[in-house]
Amino acid sequence: MNDIKNYIEENKDRFLNELIDLLKIPSISADSAYAGDVAKTAEAVKVSLEKAGCDTVEICETEGYPIVYGEKIINESLPTILVYGHYDVQPADPLELWTSGPFDPIIKKTDLHPEGAIFARGACDDKGQMYMHVKALEYLTSTNQLPCNVKFMIEGEEEVGSVNLGPFVKNNREKLKNDVILISDTGMISNSQPSITTGLRGLSYVEVEVTGPNRDLHSGLYGGAVANPINVLTKMIASLHDENNHITIPGFYDKVEELSREERDEMAKAPFSLEEYKKALDIDAVYGEEGYTTNERNSIRPTLDVNGIWGGYIGEGAKTVIASKAYAKISMRLVPNQDWKEITDLFVKHFEGIAPAGVTVKVTPHHGGQGYVTPTDNIGYQAASKAYEDTFGVKPIPQRGGGSIPIVALFEEELKSKTILMGFGLDSDAIHSPNEHFGVFNYLKGIETIPLFYKYFTELSK
Amino acid sequence: MNDIKNYIEENKDRFLNELIDLLKIPSISADSAYAGDVAKTAEAVKVSLEKAGCDTVEICETEGYPIVYGEKIINESLPTILVYGHYDVQPADPLELWTSGPFDPIIKKTDLHPEGAIFARGACDDKGQMYMHVKALEYLTSTNQLPCNVKFMIEGEEEVGSVNLGPFVKNNREKLKNDVILISDTGMISNSQPSITTGLRGLSYVEVEVTGPNRDLHSGLYGGAVANPINVLTKMIASLHDENNHITIPGFYDKVEELSREERDEMAKAPFSLEEYKKALDIDAVYGEEGYTTNERNSIRPTLDVNGIWGGYIGEGAKTVIASKAYAKISMRLVPNQDWKEITDLFVKHFEGIAPAGVTVKVTPHHGGQGYVTPTDNIGYQAASKAYEDTFGVKPIPQRGGGSIPIVALFEEELKSKTILMGFGLDSDAIHSPNEHFGVFNYLKGIETIPLFYKYFTELSK
Repeated sequence: MNDIKNYIEENKDRFLNELIDLLKIPSISADSAYAGDVAKTAEAVKVSLEKAGCDTVEICETEGYPIVYGEKIINESLPTILVYGHYDVQPADPLELWTSGPFDPIIKKTDLHPEGAIFARGACDDKGQMYMHVKALEYLTSTNQLPCNVKFMIEGEEEVGSVNLGPFVKNNREKLKNDVILISDTGMISNSQPSITTGLRGLSYVEVEVTGPNRDLHSGLYGGAVANPINVLTKMIASLHDENNHITIPGFYDKVEELSREERDEMAKAPFSLEEYKKALDIDAVYGEEGYTTNERNSIRPTLDVNGIWGGYIGEGAKTVIASKAYAKISMRLVPNQDWKEITDLFVKHFEGIAPAGVTVKVTPHHGGQGYVTPTDNIGYQAASKAYEDTFGVKPIPQRGGGSIPIVALFEEELKSKTILMGFGLDSDAIHSPNEHFGVFNYLKGIETIPLFYKYFTELSK
Repeated sequence: MNDIKNYIEENKDRFLNELIDLLKIPSISADSAYAGDVAKTAEAVKVSLEKAGCDTVEICETEGYPIVYGEKIINESLPTILVYGHYDVQPADPLELWTSGPFDPIIKKTDLHPEGAIFARGACDDKGQMYMHVKALEYLTSTNQLPCNVKFMIEGEEEVGSVNLGPFVKNNREKLKNDVILISDTGMISNSQPSITTGLRGLSYVEVEVTGPNRDLHSGLYGGAVANPINVLTKMIASLHDENNHITIPGFYDKVEELSREERDEMAKAPFSLEEYKKALDIDAVYGEEGYTTNERNSIRPTLDVNGIWGGYIGEGAKTVIASKAYAKISMRLVPNQDWKEITDLFVKHFEGIAPAGVTVKVTPHHGGQGYVTPTDNIGYQAASKAYEDTFGVKPIPQRGGGSIPIVALFEEELKSKTILMGFGLDSDAIHSPNEHFGVFNYLKGIETIPLFYKYFTELSK
């Protein structure tokens, strides 16, 4: 595979342009207004997999958006890698904070990306990282170097909880059979220090609705005399953390994996500057659970964050109203051993229980997923580590990630195989934020590294 | 004035249709998208005053929306009544809760209004109540019975804090000179038991903005490690009330007028059913400051309510984001002796002071006004009381109102005259809410009662 660098150099512009075309389609799965675009994106992914050399590619319908499945089976006796990714993207709002259109991809230079980065919603999460796998396959098939079998499963509902992927996986265990699952939907420490995510947090995402009076009221006539749903909601949410920022939901921490002092000391060796972290976010202080460091707070500890809140008059000017209803979207990041369904039940019970008289509360679970850990002695991890070392010249560091790919735990349960998270994004890529981008260096480095994983994994499987 | 009933009966349909035409114009002052409609409404009010018999009517420009001024001076030695009202209306949202269009006025029967009520934004607050005065003047001039001088000052910014009325009043003291100010922008107990509002609460309305990280963040990567502006905002707002629902802002209660046991006992005599109150709002319990009754909580006690809150992802579905900013609109209703500017300063200082490290807080005062009390031995109050007694057959009850007409205190300061609040609306009219309406009975009863106020006020002034 010595020719990979040349292959990339020769095809670089085409690789970028193909990705740019894919990024132009606003495949926002959370907003039904974009349903046509999501479907169009599935079709584009299908075509790209066919061109990259898959023997069979099909668009598998689900009750929601379809899953694109493709495969290239060269020899049943060789190992099989299942690549998972997603073609849907997060909503792009607030639009006014984007410096260029979220669906008008453009390459711009930044301090961290002197050779340019592609700015667009989905550039990193996950169209860009998913498409590296398509181009890696193209290289392996067009140069006749594919060392094993490969299957692709690219879904369109990752950003809304992958609700239809579970049934699909359960109903297609044989078709999806594999020796390892490969996903690029995470990040690494920096372009000079690669890392591999070995743990993911689970997730429970709920929406709450507090109802007070049966209609909006004039705050002069009723203010102070009836429960104001917004005031009540703020009190209820505020009470979910105590003065040490511990979560107050009874039973919430019961199954939390407590890491040993040694494990925490090992984690603390990863390069990290609190000053730079604060500077990058323009904050004067970090904030979180007492007794844990920043890197522990966002990886090995469970958290509870409000992701959205609304109620009453939110337009221009002033309106003296007491709203009938107030709402919030709340998510909890969970750590291994916390069961997301159990935590969701605990939340519902607790939140409904703390509602004062004068209001009614409704909690609607949105979606969730279990946390996950990959042991570093797994051959998949070893193969990935060697691949990164070859292309970056530095051994990657294993890291616990704070994010969630809920489907990873399901894969293990249903398909009995481990998932390797080969991420090439950076924390600064602003995924889920305005001005999401993905370094050209990172995109091409991913295309270069992935074929080596195929090679090492096949070798280590012998 | 024995012919007033006949005059109303003969002109009833026209009176209703003229009001309906006025209600069709969406004069929402809070939203600049409606600027043209607000201006159009001012013009319509001007024309109506000319037709009703004013000698002079002018549209007085301000830095915001204009003030319509009209007058009919019959004899300088007679008393002068200044009528104040407003032609702007509250925003109509949430639109989906209206059973007919907010600007498609329609007369529908209700339990409380068996002879029908006009449903439209502004029907009661304040186009309907303001227009009663126009029609009362029409009756008095067309039948040659006007007993005194009259001036009209109808503004277009009451729903956004009357910011330009203050300078206008200060600059036009001579022109606005009067013996009493008459306003219909409040309510009464019921159609069988009229009441006159003798006290109004003051108001301080602010907008707060909490900023955390400099951009929206992925809640998986940063959740639990940085201050989430929404979580922080809920904690800050929740802390503004203690466990007894007392407001915690230092100094907030220092100047609050404490009523004597006797005064509170007198208040408690007003007809009120807690069961009916709860039933009408569909709530299982009332909620408010410990130690006070519902009627005390919404009249003689100051309050703090969130009128709007927003931040993060509030669209369909789920987005795992930590917002960079969170916002709320907060208003405080104040009682006599509390100075709204002083309270606003106390709020700003306190709110900024309780912001934790990791966020910055900005408080923007929107507008405010002082509370107000009219003594019942004032001849204006006496004249109003006699007028209601004539037309309703029942002596009206003096009542402290919970709402605010901030400009009333300013009138007293600048024009040195007392304001009489002759309201004909009902609490159930849903002002500031979807399905605002104004009873046809109430509208016509207002037109019948106002000329009698003119008569009695002129007599009592001798």
